[in-house]
Amino acid sequence: MQSIDIIANAAARERIQATYSPELFQDAARQWAEILGQHLESVLARKTPVLNWNEPVSNCEFARSFLDDSSSEDRANSNTRHPQILDRFQELLRVMLARGHNLHHPHYVGHQVPPPVPLAGLFDALGSVTNQVMAIYEMGPWGMAVEQALVGRLSEAIGWDPKLSAGIVTHGGAAANLTALLAARNVTLGDTWEAGFNRGSPQPVLVTQADAHYSMMRAAGIMGLGTRQVIKAELDSLRRMDPVKLDLTLTRLQDAGHPIIAVVACACATPIGAFDPLPEIADACQKHGVWIHVDAAHGGSALLSGRYRHLLRGLERADSVVWDAHKMLFVPALCAFVFYRQKQHSFRAFQQEAQYLFDPSAPDLREFDGGVRTLECTKRTAAYGLWGLWSLFGPSLFADLVDVCFDLGATLHAKLTAAPDFEPLHEPQCNIVVFRYIPAELRGASDEVISEFQLRLRRMVIQSGEFYLVHCVINGVAAFRTTLMNPLTTSDDLDQLLDTLRKCGSTLLAEAMNDQ
Amino acid sequence: MQSIDIIANAAARERIQATYSPELFQDAARQWAEILGQHLESVLARKTPVLNWNEPVSNCEFARSFLDDSSSEDRANSNTRHPQILDRFQELLRVMLARGHNLHHPHYVGHQVPPPVPLAGLFDALGSVTNQVMAIYEMGPWGMAVEQALVGRLSEAIGWDPKLSAGIVTHGGAAANLTALLAARNVTLGDTWEAGFNRGSPQPVLVTQADAHYSMMRAAGIMGLGTRQVIKAELDSLRRMDPVKLDLTLTRLQDAGHPIIAVVACACATPIGAFDPLPEIADACQKHGVWIHVDAAHGGSALLSGRYRHLLRGLERADSVVWDAHKMLFVPALCAFVFYRQKQHSFRAFQQEAQYLFDPSAPDLREFDGGVRTLECTKRTAAYGLWGLWSLFGPSLFADLVDVCFDLGATLHAKLTAAPDFEPLHEPQCNIVVFRYIPAELRGASDEVISEFQLRLRRMVIQSGEFYLVHCVINGVAAFRTTLMNPLTTSDDLDQLLDTLRKCGSTLLAEAMNDQ
Repeated sequence: MQSIDIIANAAARERIQATYSPELFQDAARQWAEILGQHLESVLARKTPVLNWNEPVSNCEFARSFLDDSSSEDRANSNTRHPQILDRFQELLRVMLARGHNLHHPHYVGHQVPPPVPLAGLFDALGSVTNQVMAIYEMGPWGMAVEQALVGRLSEAIGWDPKLSAGIVTHGGAAANLTALLAARNVTLGDTWEAGFNRGSPQPVLVTQADAHYSMMRAAGIMGLGTRQVIKAELDSLRRMDPVKLDLTLTRLQDAGHPIIAVVACACATPIGAFDPLPEIADACQKHGVWIHVDAAHGGSALLSGRYRHLLRGLERADSVVWDAHKMLFVPALCAFVFYRQKQHSFRAFQQEAQYLFDPSAPDLREFDGGVRTLECTKRTAAYGLWGLWSLFGPSLFADLVDVCFDLGATLHAKLTAAPDFEPLHEPQCNIVVFRYIPAELRGASDEVISEFQLRLRRMVIQSGEFYLVHCVINGVAAFRTTLMNPLTTSDDLDQLLDTLRKCGSTLLAEAMNDQ
Repeated sequence: MQSIDIIANAAARERIQATYSPELFQDAARQWAEILGQHLESVLARKTPVLNWNEPVSNCEFARSFLDDSSSEDRANSNTRHPQILDRFQELLRVMLARGHNLHHPHYVGHQVPPPVPLAGLFDALGSVTNQVMAIYEMGPWGMAVEQALVGRLSEAIGWDPKLSAGIVTHGGAAANLTALLAARNVTLGDTWEAGFNRGSPQPVLVTQADAHYSMMRAAGIMGLGTRQVIKAELDSLRRMDPVKLDLTLTRLQDAGHPIIAVVACACATPIGAFDPLPEIADACQKHGVWIHVDAAHGGSALLSGRYRHLLRGLERADSVVWDAHKMLFVPALCAFVFYRQKQHSFRAFQQEAQYLFDPSAPDLREFDGGVRTLECTKRTAAYGLWGLWSLFGPSLFADLVDVCFDLGATLHAKLTAAPDFEPLHEPQCNIVVFRYIPAELRGASDEVISEFQLRLRRMVIQSGEFYLVHCVINGVAAFRTTLMNPLTTSDDLDQLLDTLRKCGSTLLAEAMNDQ
């Protein structure tokens, strides 16, 4: 133990006190509101680039320069530092915005990550500033209340009785899928948690949709199953899991004595947004007594839309479901729900003793101690954004958002179909649309050439800041992949997308000609 | 594909447009600044309870009532909804604050979760509102730049060359420990990721500090090792890992042929905040060729303090280190760093293919695609708060915070030692202080009675809102556990803590007498 230097300590306390000043916070927060509001206005009005592209090394060096700046010493010490701090604060906000990615730009048609409804960010931020964390109920009582109220409401949308089912929020779809599959592993295999995965053969397996998100394969790698024990279920021509073939696969695996941890179905799968036929898959799984996990991270929100709910038919038969609010419910990342049809399964993913955490004198609270059911110990109040948004606008907002975005998928598909130089690769079931651009010059070119052209063209377009879209690889050949995640994207924007691809494409082709 | 109802769609678009209005955002954000600033002022001035206690069932029902409120329908549709929305927005914020936990209250001496510096919450919230997520560099380029700049700076504080080492941010200490231990598993055991954990015997083991955080035992359960294969290393009388006994344990395990995944040391361990003797532990591990993982989630920040840096001596010899910025760097949860002494190990925790995500045409970017190195695919820009705070005030702020809080540990210990009715259980090395309250009436009582009294008294105190503190169990008997996580807590506050425990304690004893 060092002896305390009373004078140094008093000076440090004074500096800290000034840093925590509510007045400083209010002044800074007003500036923040101003700057961010103006930024949103420019972005929504298409007056900025979508992505502000800078090379990573130079970006990292620039970010570092602020950490090394010796002027911070003045701000930490000076008596008149309040205005100095506010000036620097503004400067930092502007740098962050000028170097960021503008998902609110209607030309953002990229990953399955939305431009959040801005007010959701304010609810979320109330949790951050006040740090309402949740491992145990008493640390974030309202955070847990809000989360469980939403779990109840969303469970009902799935078609479950919230008294019999359960759910919890975790930090993202990958963590959510891992959590559900750990529960499936522990329920299916028994004492793996304590004894480990030393099962000998025949080895346990996990059966997944062939296009399932990479987090499934990862879960197998993480949990000690091994990625070689993942069986990819066969797809039909629309890239949906084929239930007849699934039945055969399950029969074959069980005849050979392999314990089956779960079947993973998708609603929808990542590459082209295909929704698996859940009722038929559930029939097959039920016949074989196998746990069904449905990754509805993206599509689950369609349950709130009268027009698209039908895509989720059969979801109520799942044993576990993942549904990301930070996708189609338009709240900031991360807010992923894991649901279990049978309440007790919610307590099977993890097991732990933490005597310093859980209060033996209040066993009734244990059900509300989130930490026993999530990967996280300390957890943000990730559901404040969704609760606030829902309480403000009701569920009809989410129906609107799903309807408008899914409809945009159909709109883009129609344009691609009508354009002779574009090749849509599927009829979209939702807002994920995959296609290739094949200008006259490339007709009949090899797969390799077509593939490289799509990738180089995409990189050119996103780095220009004109549009942000994604690539994927279908049957070994690259393609463009858009998710119409911005409800403010219009039909005109989509026309411009095609024109931008044409314009940049011809530049690229001209460059290639010159290189020859 | 459903046909699109053009008119319904136009109405939905109009409603959405109004919801995304930058004007509405600015107005709401100004209110938010006002309300939250006033709240912070009251809390810092000790004018509110610490914890606003409500029973979980009633809290959940109340949270649910907002979701079911039909007035949201009006706000979603009306033409004059802007003021209506703002009214409701305010109401919701006030409910969230009135039911929450006030970590900024100087009587909060609870878990290892801080009252964040409020401005850090604003930087963090900029990332939320604009949703700068990071699985790949291009989705959150500035988020990754900021994160890597901080990784460099903190690596240097550990004593490493950032060119040779690596680090990444993840959602919390539990995820961070799992990530590092997966890397250790995959490096130590070879092909577990693909082949699974079917090793036969002698089984691999993990050796941990006996008081290590529960996430270590959990990591063993998750990764397929099995919790039975966790060997708890023996502690010395100060609850630090004993390096001589560790050496013997490692010899015994290796002689018996057990592969050792890692030795987990703590800086500091959870229960009483004991810092393990890292140089001696590193000697033992080096002798046996074993991976050293150091959980410095809480204590790592002492590296930034001239006065307390010595507690971390030897940290530079670790293979992996976890350091939570959302603990002693006073940013909002969650922002946990995982560091690897050898850069290449950072890519060994996970393996995946995700053709839709990683661009084969730009392999140079892969190093900056965070998703290959974290559990999360989509990840929040969790480091915005820390980068902003550091850029505003420089590292001296963090030195101040560590110094003041660690000094408070010594202050409390001195008071406990001087008080005849309190029993400090250790001499604190940092800001974690464990003690019991044993009034005259309970002197000589059984461990069971003492234990129950501490637990019931704690519950009474925290539910009263006067103080928030935690319990733990030392040698089978419950005790109070404080973490002096609020730098605004004063010596007077600590006197009041003792008085409050005495006051509530005598009420409790009187009740017990009446019950007899």
